[in-house]
Amino acid sequence: MNDPLRVAVVGATGYAGFELARLLLRHPLIEKPTFYLRDAHANVRCLTELYPQLRGWGEAPCKPLSVQAIARSGAQAVFLSTPHEASLALVPELLAANPALRIVDLSGAFRFRKPETFAEWYKLAAPDVATLSEAVYGLPELYADALPKARLVANPGCYPTSVILGLRPLLEAGWINAARGIVCDCKSGVSGAGKEPKRETHFVEVNENFRAYGLFTHRHTPEVEEHTGLAPKDFVFTTHLLPVERGILSTLYTWLNPTRTGDEVEALYRQFFAGKPMVRILPAGRLPELQHVTHTNFCDIGFALDSSGQRLVVVSCLDNLGKGAAGQAVQNLNGMWGYPETAGVI
Amino acid sequence: MNDPLRVAVVGATGYAGFELARLLLRHPLIEKPTFYLRDAHANVRCLTELYPQLRGWGEAPCKPLSVQAIARSGAQAVFLSTPHEASLALVPELLAANPALRIVDLSGAFRFRKPETFAEWYKLAAPDVATLSEAVYGLPELYADALPKARLVANPGCYPTSVILGLRPLLEAGWINAARGIVCDCKSGVSGAGKEPKRETHFVEVNENFRAYGLFTHRHTPEVEEHTGLAPKDFVFTTHLLPVERGILSTLYTWLNPTRTGDEVEALYRQFFAGKPMVRILPAGRLPELQHVTHTNFCDIGFALDSSGQRLVVVSCLDNLGKGAAGQAVQNLNGMWGYPETAGVI
Amino acid sequence: MNDPLRVAVVGATGYAGFELARLLLRHPLIEKPTFYLRDAHANVRCLTELYPQLRGWGEAPCKPLSVQAIARSGAQAVFLSTPHEASLALVPELLAANPALRIVDLSGAFRFRKPETFAEWYKLAAPDVATLSEAVYGLPELYADALPKARLVANPGCYPTSVILGLRPLLEAGWINAARGIVCDCKSGVSGAGKEPKRETHFVEVNENFRAYGLFTHRHTPEVEEHTGLAPKDFVFTTHLLPVERGILSTLYTWLNPTRTGDEVEALYRQFFAGKPMVRILPAGRLPELQHVTHTNFCDIGFALDSSGQRLVVVSCLDNLGKGAAGQAVQNLNGMWGYPETAGVI
Amino acid sequence: MNDPLRVAVVGATGYAGFELARLLLRHPLIEKPTFYLRDAHANVRCLTELYPQLRGWGEAPCKPLSVQAIARSGAQAVFLSTPHEASLALVPELLAANPALRIVDLSGAFRFRKPETFAEWYKLAAPDVATLSEAVYGLPELYADALPKARLVANPGCYPTSVILGLRPLLEAGWINAARGIVCDCKSGVSGAGKEPKRETHFVEVNENFRAYGLFTHRHTPEVEEHTGLAPKDFVFTTHLLPVERGILSTLYTWLNPTRTGDEVEALYRQFFAGKPMVRILPAGRLPELQHVTHTNFCDIGFALDSSGQRLVVVSCLDNLGKGAAGQAVQNLNGMWGYPETAGVI
Repeated sequence: MNDPLRVAVVGATGYAGFELARLLLRHPLIEKPTFYLRDAHANVRCLTELYPQLRGWGEAPCKPLSVQAIARSGAQAVFLSTPHEASLALVPELLAANPALRIVDLSGAFRFRKPETFAEWYKLAAPDVATLSEAVYGLPELYADALPKARLVANPGCYPTSVILGLRPLLEAGWINAARGIVCDCKSGVSGAGKEPKRETHFVEVNENFRAYGLFTHRHTPEVEEHTGLAPKDFVFTTHLLPVERGILSTLYTWLNPTRTGDEVEALYRQFFAGKPMVRILPAGRLPELQHVTHTNFCDIGFALDSSGQRLVVVSCLDNLGKGAAGQAVQNLNGMWGYPETAGVI
Repeated sequence: MNDPLRVAVVGATGYAGFELARLLLRHPLIEKPTFYLRDAHANVRCLTELYPQLRGWGEAPCKPLSVQAIARSGAQAVFLSTPHEASLALVPELLAANPALRIVDLSGAFRFRKPETFAEWYKLAAPDVATLSEAVYGLPELYADALPKARLVANPGCYPTSVILGLRPLLEAGWINAARGIVCDCKSGVSGAGKEPKRETHFVEVNENFRAYGLFTHRHTPEVEEHTGLAPKDFVFTTHLLPVERGILSTLYTWLNPTRTGDEVEALYRQFFAGKPMVRILPAGRLPELQHVTHTNFCDIGFALDSSGQRLVVVSCLDNLGKGAAGQAVQNLNGMWGYPETAGVI
Repeated sequence: MNDPLRVAVVGATGYAGFELARLLLRHPLIEKPTFYLRDAHANVRCLTELYPQLRGWGEAPCKPLSVQAIARSGAQAVFLSTPHEASLALVPELLAANPALRIVDLSGAFRFRKPETFAEWYKLAAPDVATLSEAVYGLPELYADALPKARLVANPGCYPTSVILGLRPLLEAGWINAARGIVCDCKSGVSGAGKEPKRETHFVEVNENFRAYGLFTHRHTPEVEEHTGLAPKDFVFTTHLLPVERGILSTLYTWLNPTRTGDEVEALYRQFFAGKPMVRILPAGRLPELQHVTHTNFCDIGFALDSSGQRLVVVSCLDNLGKGAAGQAVQNLNGMWGYPETAGVI
Repeated sequence: MNDPLRVAVVGATGYAGFELARLLLRHPLIEKPTFYLRDAHANVRCLTELYPQLRGWGEAPCKPLSVQAIARSGAQAVFLSTPHEASLALVPELLAANPALRIVDLSGAFRFRKPETFAEWYKLAAPDVATLSEAVYGLPELYADALPKARLVANPGCYPTSVILGLRPLLEAGWINAARGIVCDCKSGVSGAGKEPKRETHFVEVNENFRAYGLFTHRHTPEVEEHTGLAPKDFVFTTHLLPVERGILSTLYTWLNPTRTGDEVEALYRQFFAGKPMVRILPAGRLPELQHVTHTNFCDIGFALDSSGQRLVVVSCLDNLGKGAAGQAVQNLNGMWGYPETAGVI
């Protein structure tokens, strides 16, 4: 085994960043990471000052964010758990300051093939074209081959991860009746809405409540389009807020043509995800549930097919902070350095 | 005003029955009801023995269940909040013992046009044909005209109430693209699963969890079929369990043909439900949420239409114990006796 | 019956204010109230603009807050559901502008006998002495006699209501062993922390969590002292945050001297609260629970006594927005105008 | 390093057993354990049949429970996560069948010094005297010295662990005013009530609810007495049910004599728990919260002292399935075999 990897993390104060800290502090193949904090937290010296619950887990030294400091720190891998606009600037600056750095960016800044897609949906500047051109969309079950040489991995959104993994086997096989629409009804826990206190995340507004939001405007829509190949008019993607801390469950509705049997559907999924340890296909008759994937990096997929073999409902389920963010980021790091795919995330 | 109505309730020990008791104890136009309890509770003398939280709300005398006792009690209206198999027998027995009785049955026993539909989906005996022939499906927004003369009202299921109210305006107007499927993705709180302790309703199994259940087999499916006119192959109806006490939110997916504007859709719904005080159409841009309807008898309906005017998502939301059960039962009673529709439920 | 009472409400945008609106919109003896809103909400014309869930409940007209407008509006009763500093100024201004007004103030501004107590614990200016001198502490079970002539009622805090009602019977009877301390371990739902989004009320920080807060510094401490007569060194009052929307449960620990039987304790409480419909004493062997009082104006009290008759634990339970705030405010209004104590709150 | 330890687990179908399985499957110093299941589950071959969420975590072979099979299996350590009555019989049988076995029993059967204490509080037969005489009460922070030679470790109850760890520093130092009582107000999540569905654990009965239970009768009382040395008349121990999955928070009330400073109190606790990695003393001014210890084996302790230095409130907090059950069981195993105390539990 080589020397432990030297890792820097920028932004560990959000929910995904904290989850990332917890995973990295226990990852068997990396050194304890250094955390670079911005703004209000620039004078924090140890992450336990912000998160007393990390005491006893190991050293978590913090430094004020500085591109030059990271570039010269000896860090080999950098995780960016920063807002989209921050990543937009940091990624090219870090790569310019030290071309040997390899970055996993958890923001949306470098997820889209065309820079204007990001600009349009996020209402921000377009990402630097040259930087974007080398970005790999970090969904390892689909694009693992690109990871070993990637210098920049754009970690996918939580909703798209669940939807794309749930639909790709059917789409690649060409089993879906194109004349019917595909519906993606997705539900997420509250940590997906971020840590900033606002009316929508006040306990009293969420608890014992449930609602749809962001219909036809959710910024994850174009990620689903790019990696399913679906045209907007042919699918609907909606998001709902569950009164739970974490987890996403996506119910995916398709009509098949020609009809299939349950065994055929199960075989298709098992074959597609063979050798992919982080996706678990449920046996026929069992559907995934949120509790089985929260606090893990698994994506669980199950389905129900009607007796005519025509109407197929696929349920795809993951932890929005795990496989939907920090866990997947670590899985991407594992792919970049050739570590076992499950190292530090199981 | 006439004399207060004399009311009997059979079965107040489930969640819907308890909600019914709370509503009836405050209804301004009826006498305090008498509660007839079965089996293990036959020796209870006052409902506060079972529900100390009712102390201070008024008298709630209990008697052991007896068809003859109800028939001779002077009761004019009878609510059955009993299991399907109990209602199956009780309804004809009560009507035979006292033909002047008028019944609101909250079970599924008399909801379907054909007796075999019930038998098939509920795996029980078919209902008595003569009795079934006079049953009115108690969805007052659609069938209020039949209530004044009804002797037997079959109170609808909770999920079907939300789905049927959400889809009927579009279906009657003929706006939906028949070549595309309709998807009804429904989510319900736990009280809908009944009061009987079982693994599925254990706090630890529900809390911080979410899952789909009963796909293609839910017994509410044929109610939706009957009152939407949809063929099974053309729609999917799924149910999910939310970690909340009460409430149903149904997300209904349709494709329109030809396209429409948001104003047209809003006008269609406002016109359809004009004069229906228990359905509230939300202004464009606002979607219903569970919290706004729990502990009420309202059904809130809102929608989102994509910019092309083609993909329409309707959200329909109610309290499964209110408009989905006990509240609707009282609303039906109001219709049967010509009381104001909102009496005792607002 | 006299003409319906004309009521003004200042500040209906917090949780207590919204609960007050819901109660007043259904109170049988008052006219629909007018809501006076401050600041950001001054241009709201109907409360349903802020709270769509109130549609269908009746008119709820809003006006910008103006002392003169209220004074000349014909309103007889004014509820102030405003921050402490706002009430501090509004109460004397309103009484000066129209001496016939009678006010129920839900804030802490006029709750204490000495103005410096408020100033010290709330870190604000002391209340006007003349105004304070006519304030009645609005705990109707103890001070109902003062309500009919009161022009200013200071509505108690939520925690003190539960603690004072739970301890007063024992204290007045002189049963408590003074050499031992009294412990008041109180737990509250999140709505008590207010509607302002902050880190402490973010769903993810509250959900699946529980913690003590404000130890030895909670501002409700001096209310408990004043109305129990306990010296600080002889009791401890602590508060905890429950992951629920509403409700307070206070566990009160005392040692008796001499020892008593359970029957004696129950008789003491029943006698003390005889004729007080909003306090429910539980039968021996049953303890109150939050669910039985939420969405009501009841305070439920139960107890457990050890077999030696020495260690007595009293449990006192109420809805912090009901009997702990808006419900009690309406109960006070009922007392001020001689209405039935339960009007509009049961 | 020696060979990995060979471990058997009896009873992995309750919540503590499942947590134990999750910990053992990742423990770095033991072989994958074999699970012995009873009764209804005797034909299960792999734990993933019962818990699909364990798929991907490693092998978890199951066998029908048989004392002889365990005795001859080569297992060195046996965990019993079985009901009290089952452990009562199994422990002596296992030790008789193979005297080299070393057992950690998670039940209450062997926790008390005198056999009659168990019989009286648990309403079961008294444990075998000879077996009991060699049992070690497995609270490693207090009794670690006894673990290396222990053949039978009685894993403590969840509530007692939090109370005893919170009070022992003060009691050993003799700081508490004996004339005043000590109050232990404890709150627990629902998993502590077991997995058996019953009315008390139905989601609707727990959610948005809170209540005290088991006052003066809770079976954990004598454990607190034995390991604090307190006489029943001098302390009260109460338990409440929190609407969360897991976690215990105990608020412990003491009066000091003579008075102390906060620095003195903090120093006392830090010194007492020096070198004990699983107890974390919070810095002055910070109190523990449930979320910081759930899914961990930590016990967090903080305190608040009034300005007079007399009234001291200690808050002790842990995960009832972690440090309160399965985590502590693994910590005990670590102590028995001389492994690092935190192996497999951090």
